Amino acid sequence: MRPQGFLRRTDAVWRWKLTKIAELPRNEAGLAAALEELSQVFGDNLLTGQAIREQHGHTTTWIKTQAPDGVVMAASTEDVAQAVRICAAHKVPVIAFGTGTSLEGHVNAPAGGICIDVMQMDQVLEVNAGDLDCRVQPGVTREALNTHLRDQGLFFPIDPGANASLGGMTATRASGTNAVRYGTMKDNVLSLEVVMADGRVIRTGGRARKSSAGYDLTRLMVGSEGTLGIITEITLRLQGVPEAISSARCSFPTVQAACETVMAVIQYGLPVARIELLDADVVKAVNAYSKLTLPETPLLLLEFHGSDAGVVEQAETFGMLAEEFGGTGYAATTTPEERKKLWQARHDGYWAVLALRPGCKAVATDVCVPISRLADAVVAAQVRAEELKLIAPIVGHAGDGNFHASLLIDMDDADEVARGETFVSWLAELAISMDGTCTGEHGIGQGKRAYLSKELGAAVDVMATLKAALDPDNILNPGKILPG
Amino acid sequence: MRPQGFLRRTDAVWRWKLTKIAELPRNEAGLAAALEELSQVFGDNLLTGQAIREQHGHTTTWIKTQAPDGVVMAASTEDVAQAVRICAAHKVPVIAFGTGTSLEGHVNAPAGGICIDVMQMDQVLEVNAGDLDCRVQPGVTREALNTHLRDQGLFFPIDPGANASLGGMTATRASGTNAVRYGTMKDNVLSLEVVMADGRVIRTGGRARKSSAGYDLTRLMVGSEGTLGIITEITLRLQGVPEAISSARCSFPTVQAACETVMAVIQYGLPVARIELLDADVVKAVNAYSKLTLPETPLLLLEFHGSDAGVVEQAETFGMLAEEFGGTGYAATTTPEERKKLWQARHDGYWAVLALRPGCKAVATDVCVPISRLADAVVAAQVRAEELKLIAPIVGHAGDGNFHASLLIDMDDADEVARGETFVSWLAELAISMDGTCTGEHGIGQGKRAYLSKELGAAVDVMATLKAALDPDNILNPGKILPG
Repeated sequence: MRPQGFLRRTDAVWRWKLTKIAELPRNEAGLAAALEELSQVFGDNLLTGQAIREQHGHTTTWIKTQAPDGVVMAASTEDVAQAVRICAAHKVPVIAFGTGTSLEGHVNAPAGGICIDVMQMDQVLEVNAGDLDCRVQPGVTREALNTHLRDQGLFFPIDPGANASLGGMTATRASGTNAVRYGTMKDNVLSLEVVMADGRVIRTGGRARKSSAGYDLTRLMVGSEGTLGIITEITLRLQGVPEAISSARCSFPTVQAACETVMAVIQYGLPVARIELLDADVVKAVNAYSKLTLPETPLLLLEFHGSDAGVVEQAETFGMLAEEFGGTGYAATTTPEERKKLWQARHDGYWAVLALRPGCKAVATDVCVPISRLADAVVAAQVRAEELKLIAPIVGHAGDGNFHASLLIDMDDADEVARGETFVSWLAELAISMDGTCTGEHGIGQGKRAYLSKELGAAVDVMATLKAALDPDNILNPGKILPG
Repeated sequence: MRPQGFLRRTDAVWRWKLTKIAELPRNEAGLAAALEELSQVFGDNLLTGQAIREQHGHTTTWIKTQAPDGVVMAASTEDVAQAVRICAAHKVPVIAFGTGTSLEGHVNAPAGGICIDVMQMDQVLEVNAGDLDCRVQPGVTREALNTHLRDQGLFFPIDPGANASLGGMTATRASGTNAVRYGTMKDNVLSLEVVMADGRVIRTGGRARKSSAGYDLTRLMVGSEGTLGIITEITLRLQGVPEAISSARCSFPTVQAACETVMAVIQYGLPVARIELLDADVVKAVNAYSKLTLPETPLLLLEFHGSDAGVVEQAETFGMLAEEFGGTGYAATTTPEERKKLWQARHDGYWAVLALRPGCKAVATDVCVPISRLADAVVAAQVRAEELKLIAPIVGHAGDGNFHASLLIDMDDADEVARGETFVSWLAELAISMDGTCTGEHGIGQGKRAYLSKELGAAVDVMATLKAALDPDNILNPGKILPG
């Protein structure tokens, strides 16, 4: 069954340009003055070499690098506040930087400016095991946190794939494979310390599990991509390591059957911890890259968390549901080594896919639709990519209705680039027409600004009002999220 | 063990005044002009009789009524927008009204103004069973929604006790007995339609389970108590009715033992759907009010949701944990009738407690602390109430660390009122000193404004900046949340 009607709509007005990332006007006098003052205050911790600047404007994507003019290596909240105050005085852009693994040009400096690298702020400040929470600096990575927690029987569930910094994950409202069970960063940040655009430091809350104390500044900052403030401490919810964890995989004759199984799982209320879709192209890529021998048809990878008995019950229920949709080769991976190997292969999917067509750039898409539309959306995306003669392997955090078609584009082929632009715009419009979103987890950054108004209309004006109120000189990560 | 150190701290500067709710300056000319214009537009749907006005400024609490000057019975989003536009033109306050069951003076009109009653906007607009979501108007009550959903095997879990409107629950970030498992309104609202202070109508999102598309306006509006916009539609997450539900109760020798059991349950990761604390005074009150024969010692009421086997396993695990802390009389209530009776008694707790001392007002407190501090906080509250010769029965959504000591105050006894003020301020400060919050679920309203700055410091200035940006003439529910 092929979805009808929305396949061929285009809208030239908001059509996305893959190759054009705007430069913004530079405040040359302010930049020079700010660099001078920062140099006096930070000495060797202000870096201005070209290589280090380019590294701090680098993303793992197709988006071209727009390097900042200098990089402050911050060691404390006060460092961040002081750097922001200096930049504010000279009306110079400030861009926060963690691991640089964001996918929408978030760390680029289209108007130049000062990058604040927080990776030296890498301390786990406290772990309250009895309260299942912890307080960390923004440069702690998710893997470092989980290593720190391991001995206490705790873990932090959000896993976007990359070993990202928790500051960056908070700023982009990251999620990933475990979100179907544990939610996104929105659900797992209890409170924040934030440096505002004028250098003030605020705390948005305490450690209570819930609060009705005023406006939810925590959630306003989560996902604000460094445009409303710079996150300097994060209080996170933790989870106890489940009594039992089991993984499983199941192959399907069609991607539609796999999606329909996911829909049934969610509608049934089965509390899967992970349910990931790999289309046949991705399975082929993963087999080649990770030396696996998975059947080269659409695949679901699963993980179940619970009690010993609960995990067995979940796995049995899944098996029953999958069978209805033609699932085959349903196999539990019983050992931790096997489980790790399978999930490592999933996490390496991005690199595996890139290896399908060496020399090309991967243009990641990130739509998310209501779960009942998942099969329609994925099938439509495959059909449209084929029509446009594009290679667009699909992986999905299917339980959330979120999937990524990664276009492999030869950036020197103008026609292919144009077809890529057509696909990306079409897919965003498809998701929006299904009551979904153009970005489930990557954020808007530079790359998706064109879609935000399409998706949210007048609400974007309200966002602009908030931005202007909290950052009247537009120094915090300018050129991100908001159009213009 | 009696907690030390924090029992006797007071801070005269922010000491709360039970008896003083400020009047704000009235814009008499604007009010007259707005009423005239609203009358032309809304005709009989503008009500100005004294009884109806007082009813719309009435709360169930000790807080005195400050009636609005007129009540618009809105039937549509356009009605709300039009009423707001008229009030905005005349710089006249606008106060949204649902069931009037809020507890902190949220519906009062300290500067006069126009109440917009949304209870005629009571339609469930769509239910997407396959996506586990629905879209409702703000006047739908939680019981009406659950009645609507029953045939589809779905339910909406948030249960603050009162049969509140979903608009009001959203506006106050309500939670209640099920939050330990299902979260609060923050976690269960997917997106909103909101009328802004100038009458613009925005939508904050679609129906995707997650999104990283710009600032989280949904969460900014949830809990904003009608001060940033008026909610005219709510898209909610739903849950499938669990395969099995069982309830249980367990008595404890001391409130400390009961709290320590709750702490163990949370730290163990047992996914209880409800775990409610009633201290011995409340059990006595409930026995008298609801004709029950519960042992008159501290009690936990529980509910387990899951598969048939899962519910049994949860109940067994709870029994094992409770035994360690001296729990006795652990009994599962197997029939729906028995379960309903027990939970009805819990929900009637407020009225049962009021009946303990006829003629008195109940002054509700609402602190929430990290779970590891729950026993300390509850015991300290009991000790402090006794020292102050106050009757302050305690119920708690214990799994969240949230509890309510309801002071029964003879408002004609100035000395008792003063002791009540001392207690309320002391308890808020205690919770804040424990990294908790002065309000877990009731909101700030008029009653708790004094504590907000104490709890969040400079963050409150940021809230004021947001308020000024979105509502520059301060027409939306003035005198609520923000100090001054």
